[in-house]
Amino acid sequence: MSNVLVLGHKNPDTDSICSAISYAYLKKQLGMPAEPIRLGEANNETLYALEYFKFEQPRLVEKVAAEASQVILVDHNERQQSAADIQDVQILEVVDHHRIANFETVDPLYFRAEPVGCTATIILKLFKEHGVEVPSDIAGLMLSAIISDSLLFKSPTCTEQDLQAARELAEIANVDAAQYGLAMLKAGADLSNKTLEDLMSLDSKEFEANDHRFEVAQVNAIDVNEVISRQKELEVLMNEKIARKNLDLFAFVVTDILNNDSVAIVLGRKADIIEGAFKSSVVDNRILLPGVVSRKKQIIPVITEALS
Amino acid sequence: MSNVLVLGHKNPDTDSICSAISYAYLKKQLGMPAEPIRLGEANNETLYALEYFKFEQPRLVEKVAAEASQVILVDHNERQQSAADIQDVQILEVVDHHRIANFETVDPLYFRAEPVGCTATIILKLFKEHGVEVPSDIAGLMLSAIISDSLLFKSPTCTEQDLQAARELAEIANVDAAQYGLAMLKAGADLSNKTLEDLMSLDSKEFEANDHRFEVAQVNAIDVNEVISRQKELEVLMNEKIARKNLDLFAFVVTDILNNDSVAIVLGRKADIIEGAFKSSVVDNRILLPGVVSRKKQIIPVITEALS
Repeated sequence: MSNVLVLGHKNPDTDSICSAISYAYLKKQLGMPAEPIRLGEANNETLYALEYFKFEQPRLVEKVAAEASQVILVDHNERQQSAADIQDVQILEVVDHHRIANFETVDPLYFRAEPVGCTATIILKLFKEHGVEVPSDIAGLMLSAIISDSLLFKSPTCTEQDLQAARELAEIANVDAAQYGLAMLKAGADLSNKTLEDLMSLDSKEFEANDHRFEVAQVNAIDVNEVISRQKELEVLMNEKIARKNLDLFAFVVTDILNNDSVAIVLGRKADIIEGAFKSSVVDNRILLPGVVSRKKQIIPVITEALS
Repeated sequence: MSNVLVLGHKNPDTDSICSAISYAYLKKQLGMPAEPIRLGEANNETLYALEYFKFEQPRLVEKVAAEASQVILVDHNERQQSAADIQDVQILEVVDHHRIANFETVDPLYFRAEPVGCTATIILKLFKEHGVEVPSDIAGLMLSAIISDSLLFKSPTCTEQDLQAARELAEIANVDAAQYGLAMLKAGADLSNKTLEDLMSLDSKEFEANDHRFEVAQVNAIDVNEVISRQKELEVLMNEKIARKNLDLFAFVVTDILNNDSVAIVLGRKADIIEGAFKSSVVDNRILLPGVVSRKKQIIPVITEALS
């Protein structure tokens, strides 16, 4: 029997990598030959977490069907965010906390989605439901995922359940969540070794709404202006991507992790919906988004609604 | 705050009605103003279960948006099986045991699907996870749903989890599952007060595969030949439905609940796929399906595969 691959989304973030490792661990304890993989490069924040808790990066697998006939998806369900050949394998399970769209199966499956801030919060429940103990290092990874997705518990996506899970996990991992979390977020916001191309794809997700295709990239920063000062160069790359992928809209969001605000650069033939959608002015292709830190809760639904 | 409507699929079966009542009860215990409804007439089997455990039928609601802004789906997720105006309301939760298709939301939601034989089996888990006791009469309804979906535990869809749930529920409801179950199935297989039009829509579900639309109706019978003897009249009605709904394929399946076999009448421009799909001859638009009792596990995947 070949391994069952456990994978997060393309352009993986800390939740995608850490939930893949954690859930594969749980499935192995339950007797399934599960292996975590990643669909792309881990970012600096994730690398910090992996190194801190002494894990190797999961193996990079770009086409899953050559490796396995069955997979488990964590932290995503939309097929355009998954492996390019996802339709060629059987999806055994999904554990996710996003909206459901562009997902279809032939057979019934185990699908567990909950409107919480992080996949790892659901995975902690699954450990408990199966009566499996969370090892200290796995707890550290799951805590890292919650800190990452919630921007250290400050995002509006963060629920009481995420907070409670983080408290339990910090205790098992024996770390101070606030101190460890700030160090991890700062490692992720260190953009010094990143090219502009890197920034564009580091954490970028594609969506569809009403037959329109749009993409939203998000980078965390300590100094937002350092990124925005290179807007002209960024726009060249953004326009290239829009043309290559035939996008109707591309938003590049820079989030200030210390002050919890964002600035977005918006381009594409549907960029004119942004002012109405966010009820604010777009000046020089740029819009200020005070208090906006969550792509999932504060950006995607607003754009989806405006495009519909 | 208006009620949150809890609904099963169109042409409701015993699981759709009983899971709607049971889950609405659980949500009410948890503080949500939930109300079970039904999208169509309950069948004889369901009426038997409701009467036995002294429940009224849920209210018939054909358009949900006029009544509520939020709904919970049980026992289905595909939009063509749901309320006609389902896209006008927010789907708060889904609890289901079918494949996932034609389902999309703007926001994250609670989505719990498991590959078990019956929605009620999952709902029993949810009672336990929330620490809510299952009342005796509600247990009776949930047991009825499992017996119905599993044809008294004989369908290949029936899992060890369904069996275990049925054992627990029979004890709470204080009934003998085998004896009660056979009486309930026989009540459902009593077709004497049904017109041919009734048989066509009693338990009929529409599906899509590779841009083809197909529908599979299923009726349980004690005497299959009693139904098949009226094939010519049935075919007239089937062809009318195919034309009206522009179906590529319509299969009318009669299942022998005592011997666990089925016979299907198949019509439509794609009916020629049936022989290859089921590796058996179609004679006079009719095919014998020995050992086939489960639409979900033994019919839909086979047709979907053949159409793809």
